[in-house]
Amino acid sequence: MPKSALAQQPHWKAFASRRRDPTTKREAVLKTAAELFLEKSYGRTSLDDIAERLNITKPALYHYFHKKEEILLECYRWGTGLIEESLTEIAGSAGTGLEKVAAFVYSYANVMTVNFGRCVMRLDEGDLSTQALEEVRTYKRKIDRRLRSFIQEGIRDGSIAPCDPKIAAFSIAGAVNWICMWYEPAGPLTAEEIASQFARTLTQGLARRKPDSLRRAAPAGPSAD
Amino acid sequence: MPKSALAQQPHWKAFASRRRDPTTKREAVLKTAAELFLEKSYGRTSLDDIAERLNITKPALYHYFHKKEEILLECYRWGTGLIEESLTEIAGSAGTGLEKVAAFVYSYANVMTVNFGRCVMRLDEGDLSTQALEEVRTYKRKIDRRLRSFIQEGIRDGSIAPCDPKIAAFSIAGAVNWICMWYEPAGPLTAEEIASQFARTLTQGLARRKPDSLRRAAPAGPSAD
Repeated sequence: MPKSALAQQPHWKAFASRRRDPTTKREAVLKTAAELFLEKSYGRTSLDDIAERLNITKPALYHYFHKKEEILLECYRWGTGLIEESLTEIAGSAGTGLEKVAAFVYSYANVMTVNFGRCVMRLDEGDLSTQALEEVRTYKRKIDRRLRSFIQEGIRDGSIAPCDPKIAAFSIAGAVNWICMWYEPAGPLTAEEIASQFARTLTQGLARRKPDSLRRAAPAGPSAD
Repeated sequence: MPKSALAQQPHWKAFASRRRDPTTKREAVLKTAAELFLEKSYGRTSLDDIAERLNITKPALYHYFHKKEEILLECYRWGTGLIEESLTEIAGSAGTGLEKVAAFVYSYANVMTVNFGRCVMRLDEGDLSTQALEEVRTYKRKIDRRLRSFIQEGIRDGSIAPCDPKIAAFSIAGAVNWICMWYEPAGPLTAEEIASQFARTLTQGLARRKPDSLRRAAPAGPSAD
């Protein structure tokens, strides 16, 4: 995750040099907005606040976005885009359903520690227009369907114990989504620590397994299961 | 859970009969308020709305509460009280740390399907006064500490695999807290189905274990682990 590198690079620097391209500047606007939305809430952030933090004038900001709501929607798009990207990669990979769920948890948890990911789950969807809300809900449904399909795949291939895939998907998504409520970028836990342990305990459980003692007792060879 | 029974009993009935005691009427106010806060949001619910749904006058409502914020705090108290009650019972029970975590998930998930529990996690704490917020945060910290202590107990007694109890507690609490975001009292999933599967998969994991085949292969008697 390039998170720490991103955090160390002040976004206003994108506007401090004439050589920077418009895409970099547009991204700097979005990153600054996401930061402010999480710090002060969406409602309390104005276009002026965003321009001020970027050290640019409001007309310069208008070159990229005309309305705060456009910026909000772009933040959602970026965040869900990060999740979708890794989902597509996982879906196309080899491995059991259980391995796909673990990979999903790992990369989704990482996304939940970066600002765009945190925006997706922490900001109030009620601030989106009806059309934008429909778009965001469609993304979220897609993510949920993918996760369910990995669980179903795991039940079929025998890597996951029979369960209700809907409830299982809700419990996994809930655990990961909740990260945005407690994760502190400056806190003692790293994204890597969180993502790894989430991937492990949400698939393997908290319970201690006894593979060694059982393996010692059991004869070698494939099990009957 | 007496949830369905509660839902079937209209709260205004508490005021329709002269024989009802003040405690029942006070509870009816709180239940109605919790319902409205979840339906319309706290900000959009007025004392008039609460009085109207209870079919009483505003002065009659004032007999129980003077400010909306008092009602909000009482809803939080009720919700966290439900969680604490079951936690105390679990803490005092026999069983391994893992069994206590499973019992915790089961009862906490049940609380998250009733309105007072949903209020605790879904309403915006920013609407509480500084003092009330401190009170609510103290409750939440207590719940978190209890869960962590069960996990630590499980690591010590060997029922839980070594892990970071803080991250594990966050993943479990997140999965359960998130219930308030998707659970629909009128939906197809019952509180019992949700609570049972959450308790199972959050402790045992999604992964299929192979106890039968291994048990058949392993000799009887305690394992070396």
